[in-house]
Amino acid sequence: MDIAGQPISLPEWSPIIEDHLSSRQPIVNLASGGEGVYDAIFIGGGAAGRFGSAYLKALGGRPLVIDRWPFLGGSCPHQACVPHHLFSEAAAILDRERWLGGQLWFRACEDVRASILDVVDVFRKGRVSAHAFMNWQTKTQLEVEYILNTPARAIDPGTVEAAGQTFRTRNIVIAIGAHQNRLDLPGADLPGVFDFGTLVEDLDYDPRKCVIIGGSKVAVEYGSFFQAAGCQTTILTRSPLLRTQNLHHVDEDVRRYVVDGMRKRGVEIIEGGSPIEIKGTDRVEAVIAQGPGGETLHIDCDFVFNGVGETPNSALPAQWLGVQVGPRGEVVVDKRMRTSVANVYAAGDLIGPPMEMFKARKCGMTAARNIMGEPYEFDFSEYPDFLHTTYEMSWVGLTEDEARERYADVVVIQMPPKDIAHEDIPLPVAEGTMLYAFLKPELSGFQKCVIDGDTRRILGFHHVGYGAKDAFQYLDYLLRRPEGITIDEMGQMNELFLNPEHFIQLCRLRAGRRGLVDL
Amino acid sequence: MDIAGQPISLPEWSPIIEDHLSSRQPIVNLASGGEGVYDAIFIGGGAAGRFGSAYLKALGGRPLVIDRWPFLGGSCPHQACVPHHLFSEAAAILDRERWLGGQLWFRACEDVRASILDVVDVFRKGRVSAHAFMNWQTKTQLEVEYILNTPARAIDPGTVEAAGQTFRTRNIVIAIGAHQNRLDLPGADLPGVFDFGTLVEDLDYDPRKCVIIGGSKVAVEYGSFFQAAGCQTTILTRSPLLRTQNLHHVDEDVRRYVVDGMRKRGVEIIEGGSPIEIKGTDRVEAVIAQGPGGETLHIDCDFVFNGVGETPNSALPAQWLGVQVGPRGEVVVDKRMRTSVANVYAAGDLIGPPMEMFKARKCGMTAARNIMGEPYEFDFSEYPDFLHTTYEMSWVGLTEDEARERYADVVVIQMPPKDIAHEDIPLPVAEGTMLYAFLKPELSGFQKCVIDGDTRRILGFHHVGYGAKDAFQYLDYLLRRPEGITIDEMGQMNELFLNPEHFIQLCRLRAGRRGLVDL
Repeated sequence: MDIAGQPISLPEWSPIIEDHLSSRQPIVNLASGGEGVYDAIFIGGGAAGRFGSAYLKALGGRPLVIDRWPFLGGSCPHQACVPHHLFSEAAAILDRERWLGGQLWFRACEDVRASILDVVDVFRKGRVSAHAFMNWQTKTQLEVEYILNTPARAIDPGTVEAAGQTFRTRNIVIAIGAHQNRLDLPGADLPGVFDFGTLVEDLDYDPRKCVIIGGSKVAVEYGSFFQAAGCQTTILTRSPLLRTQNLHHVDEDVRRYVVDGMRKRGVEIIEGGSPIEIKGTDRVEAVIAQGPGGETLHIDCDFVFNGVGETPNSALPAQWLGVQVGPRGEVVVDKRMRTSVANVYAAGDLIGPPMEMFKARKCGMTAARNIMGEPYEFDFSEYPDFLHTTYEMSWVGLTEDEARERYADVVVIQMPPKDIAHEDIPLPVAEGTMLYAFLKPELSGFQKCVIDGDTRRILGFHHVGYGAKDAFQYLDYLLRRPEGITIDEMGQMNELFLNPEHFIQLCRLRAGRRGLVDL
Repeated sequence: MDIAGQPISLPEWSPIIEDHLSSRQPIVNLASGGEGVYDAIFIGGGAAGRFGSAYLKALGGRPLVIDRWPFLGGSCPHQACVPHHLFSEAAAILDRERWLGGQLWFRACEDVRASILDVVDVFRKGRVSAHAFMNWQTKTQLEVEYILNTPARAIDPGTVEAAGQTFRTRNIVIAIGAHQNRLDLPGADLPGVFDFGTLVEDLDYDPRKCVIIGGSKVAVEYGSFFQAAGCQTTILTRSPLLRTQNLHHVDEDVRRYVVDGMRKRGVEIIEGGSPIEIKGTDRVEAVIAQGPGGETLHIDCDFVFNGVGETPNSALPAQWLGVQVGPRGEVVVDKRMRTSVANVYAAGDLIGPPMEMFKARKCGMTAARNIMGEPYEFDFSEYPDFLHTTYEMSWVGLTEDEARERYADVVVIQMPPKDIAHEDIPLPVAEGTMLYAFLKPELSGFQKCVIDGDTRRILGFHHVGYGAKDAFQYLDYLLRRPEGITIDEMGQMNELFLNPEHFIQLCRLRAGRRGLVDL
């Protein structure tokens, strides 16, 4: 389908995408038929490719994006972050209904149960509208050329083939993402074994008892949703939950509050366990595992969820162009997103963790700037992070333990204060935890701010609750700018009470002191 | 009750406060029996007095706080912002249940109804624990002297009398707040007429039909809660809703989205109307009003809510010390919180609008710093603001219209984009609007960023949805620092996807361009 020069309104896009999901017909949006030389061809139109191409276009360059799916935006709106957010929102709502069950207008807690299949169906039916928006915006607002619903292949750093046509380019940016690691277990192919991608594609029954294998973010997030929906969930993980290599800077007090919270909600967490086999005939029936003490565990289930993480899709780029691949399967790049091959860039999940949206988009932007002659570097060794259980949990900077290793005078401001029990304090009382504050105060969240007493600079912010994630984007910026942010500057800001994180006012209660002390 | 030197644990505080709520016994927490000279006596222990005294103490001074209630924290946790947040959270939950009624696990929408009385009761029963925390923290963590449950009287700028004792001080900081304006109407004293204070003290039935008189923030916030609970609500206001003197910088597109949203939810809004009389015998039965066209309206109701705003409690300070009072009843202060009388400061709602928490606390801090010899100024002519309907709405900086009046090249980045209908776009998809995004996209919020195309500086941020209020504290800081914040700097930040406000990524989609254009 050639759409070049055709105005397509946003509502017109959804049926076009639906039709193409089951066809092999490319959607072609090219200027002058793809003649001439592009400044960059982006292979992969996910977050990295879409934002990278948009930035390159904005800088005055000529980009082309090619994606195998009939929409731009990649896996996020189709299988990954968008459904995860939908499921996490459902989890938070169901969790509140259950804790407050029988009080006020809430139904009895034993009646709180949701069909996972129905929620997945809501996502499946609705996701095309996000796809439609990406296609519309990229064509109409961003004026970027693209070819969708077709695979691309790099012939050499100046040539890309797609949809039976050969395109010339000065640079290639490869951003084809990552794939779910397979479970290397007998029974891993049985019906009833899902990962975040196959869940939204293939689920056709309502699970009642789930075993999650792995302790990744995805494991925690999806497990919390399954449990909240009323599906008894067991997480089987080698490392302690939320204490893995890829998840840095999780404060131990925060970790404990969150993991204890998952247990309090009924999730069974087996740390130090490893799976041996998945058993079943028509569908999974049990996971056989070795427990932390070496004992054999037989865990009944009708649903197994693979939460063991992802590996970059580096095989094709290595085969096409010989780009160097690192020990974890990632395409190796420098801070300008240059691979080992001249004029070939890589971006997004393909270059390894963190497999997060900000990184993908900014990698794409970084490649675009360098291609257009701006020597721009992007360092993502430090970044703000978040995850969901039934809570939203956000953090940036150092944990208390990390700070104590590096600084002589560490001051901690937290709520509840260190010597106060969670159930004795109705604070944090913020957006989304007011009812908890009054009816179940121990569930109303936790927050901590870590400060270097000598320089008065804040070293880390940590929050569990709701409504603070957005703020952490700006806290990250303030923390990382060369001058950082001090407790005194925090104390002079204008808070919007009741603010989900109480950082500003708590800082103000100590900011006046020459010698800082904990609060 | 003399508690000086007695350690009182947090759980021990609640029964002490409960006992004193119905007694005249002061709670006395004095060092050396109040002998010697204080650096400042704070009359009023609300946000201004509590934060001011804590700051003065932190600076090395000796403060004393005196409050008429048996707890510190003032009206906020007792009658004002805390219940408002509880009610707004209830409103958001009920609103979602109704819109999604009959889908997924949500009950049928006609069954969505909550008892306002029950929610008020939850607040009444639980509020003491916030009070307990304030008393505990102020004594134990902040080490501030106080006398509670007793009125204070300033004799002269160096002398304060309370609980039968006279105290000497170098300065007085008066922070005794504001009072609800009376309805100047026949029938205003009938049972069934409430304001935000009497609502939580006196409500003893479940209202079914409410008329709100006035168009203040409180009117909008409480009205949205009443309607969400299933109590048919009419707002009778002279000015267009959300377009009043005290509510500056409300963008017109935002205002329309929010006010239309209230109407869509069934709130009847009569703009340009004015009340004539409240009718009733045992309880209110109707409000008689003049409609916008001069017609007489008879609005049946069993509940009238006074939302006509507040006036500072300046009569006593004027009488005690002769401090100058302004045209709106506010104690006049300079930017250091100094009144017209030497060594007498005023702070909080007493000095007029905005009657917001950040202002109260920072006024107290400002007075403390000046008293302790730091010439510190606080200018609150500009500030971030928010309110709740069933949405959380946050804003800071200029509206689009204001920007266009002052700047030649105004660029607007918004979601949904200007030419796209709300129902055609599933974005903003953020914390708290994911289910809406998939099932009722036109309810999923609205956001706008206003930019000066010439300097590339951001002039204003506006958001309707959930989960963005906390971020606006930092956006306010970034917007107001001397160098401001540009679209380019925004585009280089690390977003936490799905972030409730999409400012960072939307900025990034335009930041590459030399000549900025709308998105």
